[in-house]
Amino acid sequence: MEKGKETQNLPETHLPSSKALRIETELVWLSCFGAEPNGGVTRLLYTPAWVEAQQALAQRMRANGFRVYYDEVGNLFGRLEGSDEPNYTIMTGSHIDTVKCGGKYDGAYGVMASLLAVESLQQRYGQPKRSLEIVSLCEEEGSRFPMTYWGSGSITGFRQYEQIVNLQDAEGISFVDAMTTAGFPDAHLPREQRQDIKAYIELHVEQGAILENNHIAIGIVEHIVGQRRYTMELTGEANHAGTTPMVWRRDALEGASRMIVRLYELARQYGDGLVATVGKLAVEPNIPNVIPGKVSFTVDVRHASEEVLHSFCNQMIMNFQDMAQEQELSFQHTSWMSVSPTPLHTELNHSIEQLCVRDGISHMRMNSGAGHDAQVFQPICPTALIFVPSHKGISHSPQEYTSSEHLAVGVHVLSEILYTLGYEGGAYEKV
Amino acid sequence: MEKGKETQNLPETHLPSSKALRIETELVWLSCFGAEPNGGVTRLLYTPAWVEAQQALAQRMRANGFRVYYDEVGNLFGRLEGSDEPNYTIMTGSHIDTVKCGGKYDGAYGVMASLLAVESLQQRYGQPKRSLEIVSLCEEEGSRFPMTYWGSGSITGFRQYEQIVNLQDAEGISFVDAMTTAGFPDAHLPREQRQDIKAYIELHVEQGAILENNHIAIGIVEHIVGQRRYTMELTGEANHAGTTPMVWRRDALEGASRMIVRLYELARQYGDGLVATVGKLAVEPNIPNVIPGKVSFTVDVRHASEEVLHSFCNQMIMNFQDMAQEQELSFQHTSWMSVSPTPLHTELNHSIEQLCVRDGISHMRMNSGAGHDAQVFQPICPTALIFVPSHKGISHSPQEYTSSEHLAVGVHVLSEILYTLGYEGGAYEKV
Repeated sequence: MEKGKETQNLPETHLPSSKALRIETELVWLSCFGAEPNGGVTRLLYTPAWVEAQQALAQRMRANGFRVYYDEVGNLFGRLEGSDEPNYTIMTGSHIDTVKCGGKYDGAYGVMASLLAVESLQQRYGQPKRSLEIVSLCEEEGSRFPMTYWGSGSITGFRQYEQIVNLQDAEGISFVDAMTTAGFPDAHLPREQRQDIKAYIELHVEQGAILENNHIAIGIVEHIVGQRRYTMELTGEANHAGTTPMVWRRDALEGASRMIVRLYELARQYGDGLVATVGKLAVEPNIPNVIPGKVSFTVDVRHASEEVLHSFCNQMIMNFQDMAQEQELSFQHTSWMSVSPTPLHTELNHSIEQLCVRDGISHMRMNSGAGHDAQVFQPICPTALIFVPSHKGISHSPQEYTSSEHLAVGVHVLSEILYTLGYEGGAYEKV
Repeated sequence: MEKGKETQNLPETHLPSSKALRIETELVWLSCFGAEPNGGVTRLLYTPAWVEAQQALAQRMRANGFRVYYDEVGNLFGRLEGSDEPNYTIMTGSHIDTVKCGGKYDGAYGVMASLLAVESLQQRYGQPKRSLEIVSLCEEEGSRFPMTYWGSGSITGFRQYEQIVNLQDAEGISFVDAMTTAGFPDAHLPREQRQDIKAYIELHVEQGAILENNHIAIGIVEHIVGQRRYTMELTGEANHAGTTPMVWRRDALEGASRMIVRLYELARQYGDGLVATVGKLAVEPNIPNVIPGKVSFTVDVRHASEEVLHSFCNQMIMNFQDMAQEQELSFQHTSWMSVSPTPLHTELNHSIEQLCVRDGISHMRMNSGAGHDAQVFQPICPTALIFVPSHKGISHSPQEYTSSEHLAVGVHVLSEILYTLGYEGGAYEKV
């Protein structure tokens, strides 16, 4: 896409503000906390890099006069109180943590964009009618501990202290000790769930190439797909590669290979909305001159419809069972993740779409193939998720990239919907 | 197979001697050196277990009055000098080293059988016309250092000191230090290759299930198969499992799976004599929710004909190249092992066959799918390789098993061919 193509047709009054254009600089600033020599960023939950980044953000928010506070688990908030309906909170943000050696944009973009958008609205229009609240969620990725959505989940009641109390990181440090060391010793105390959050808006990089390939600036997410994850285990007979004729073999890797080929045929039959992936595979004993006796592999299946997921996974398992029997392999499957599709808020999405039309910004409705904090807020309040293009769809990598123009258009759209909700009191009926 | 089935039809005079029936006891005795708690044996080259086993064997051979000596690399010899043609040596034996936690039979059987056979011949018939020499080869498996056939190779000139001088084991101990510590500091000295070895006979467990499944006691090996080993590398594009539609993927594991399925179809088309195995496979990054960007896998191909090997491997590589291109994957292959098929000695095999016919022992011609020391002796002298059944074909495992009756029949056949060669001066024209 040509640089700036999407912004060419914007009416003068709705051009991204100079603040919005600062977004790239802000992301580089934030990426200094946890910077890796190769250009990547590692900011794992409760590590020093993470603590310093939250502290720096807190300082930035205090300088704007926002009311700044942490909750018991380390989520950071910057609140601009509303004049008419202070207990009607429009929350916006994303997560501060990264994968190991991730990019500058995933999560960080939503946090910095929220800060710029609310700063800009305050400077231009003063106090809002409803409260605007920036959130820098402490954790989404699950890259240090085997736990995802700890930040958003702690706010919405999706996660409880009991779920983390026995968790350890790869170095044997307990979740509780890490949290306490980072300055949050009170997560075990009982607390009431917030009732004031009436909307959650998250801006995020797509992490896919649909927007870029379609030359579109803004993705308005209708569904976050549901996911199923399985581990498949095939057992045959390990044997000598030289002395066992082909016809006597019970080769677990041959069985797995046939299943993988079949899986992808099936996925393509279901059409573009469905994705299935075998990402991890292990062979035993994994020696060049021994016929594999055991193979285990994962399957990750995603679709926006629960019914389609259900039907696909059933067919897959039945296919695998038949194939295992034909090849005299024993077959076991374990389902270890099942997340339902999340529909985002129809009226909020309609408002975002209208803003894009008004400002001449190319946009499309789409689904999110990745999980996001938005899906954790969706059960408690009207929720929207807005995407900007990711170059080549690359994510969780130092190569993650979105042009400054695309970043700025996203900040603009976020500012405008926050204005509609916070200053005009519009967008949808009160919930 | 019913116990003792093969021996039922033996004429009284050719029944396995009481010595031959002792073979099982002897194998249990030898397995005490390097015994593992689970019933396996670990006797890695130049380790204390290996040294003790060779010393115990030397003592056994000395007690019989054999001339006992080691060569510079640790091969152990027990020689019974011939009266008429002392410089015409009939060598028989196998290797003393094992894989990690291997069985009691692989290698050890050939060593102990040689000892029992020559002991028995000496006791029954006194001094032979030609020299009979037992060899306990120091190494065949390559399980401690990345080096196979060091024992037989050092005798025949197939291996040189230069090939091991830079090798280390997994713990960083150098080959030379290990050899010196075991008592063999002189391997670097120049030495002349022996010219007196006029035949090599090796008795070994089949390590496959062809004899057992065909209810046959003795396998007479016509060819040791040739081998080709490759590593195939496929590179696609690692990407997010949720946000990358199926049609945009360049999935290296899907590519590898299709190739593996194709490889086995092709191998079955070539018929039973050909075996092809993908024993080792590695996926990158090997994470459940990331599309595999790289896959490497090994291919092991074996057949008794060089032409068939050549044709099969060419067709395989061409198929793989075409498939990689179709799926927009980059493909590289590395050939890292190429061993030609070894034909064993026609007249020797004919003599062994005649002995089996004479003594009513069920037998068949076959190929060896595994490599053996015999293939290293074959270029320098008439060589034979005799198999006895392996239960279920299991090898390199504590479950390796051959019944005492089968073991005894093997010792009997070995004794008889050694008698023919050493006492009658028969079997084939002098070389």
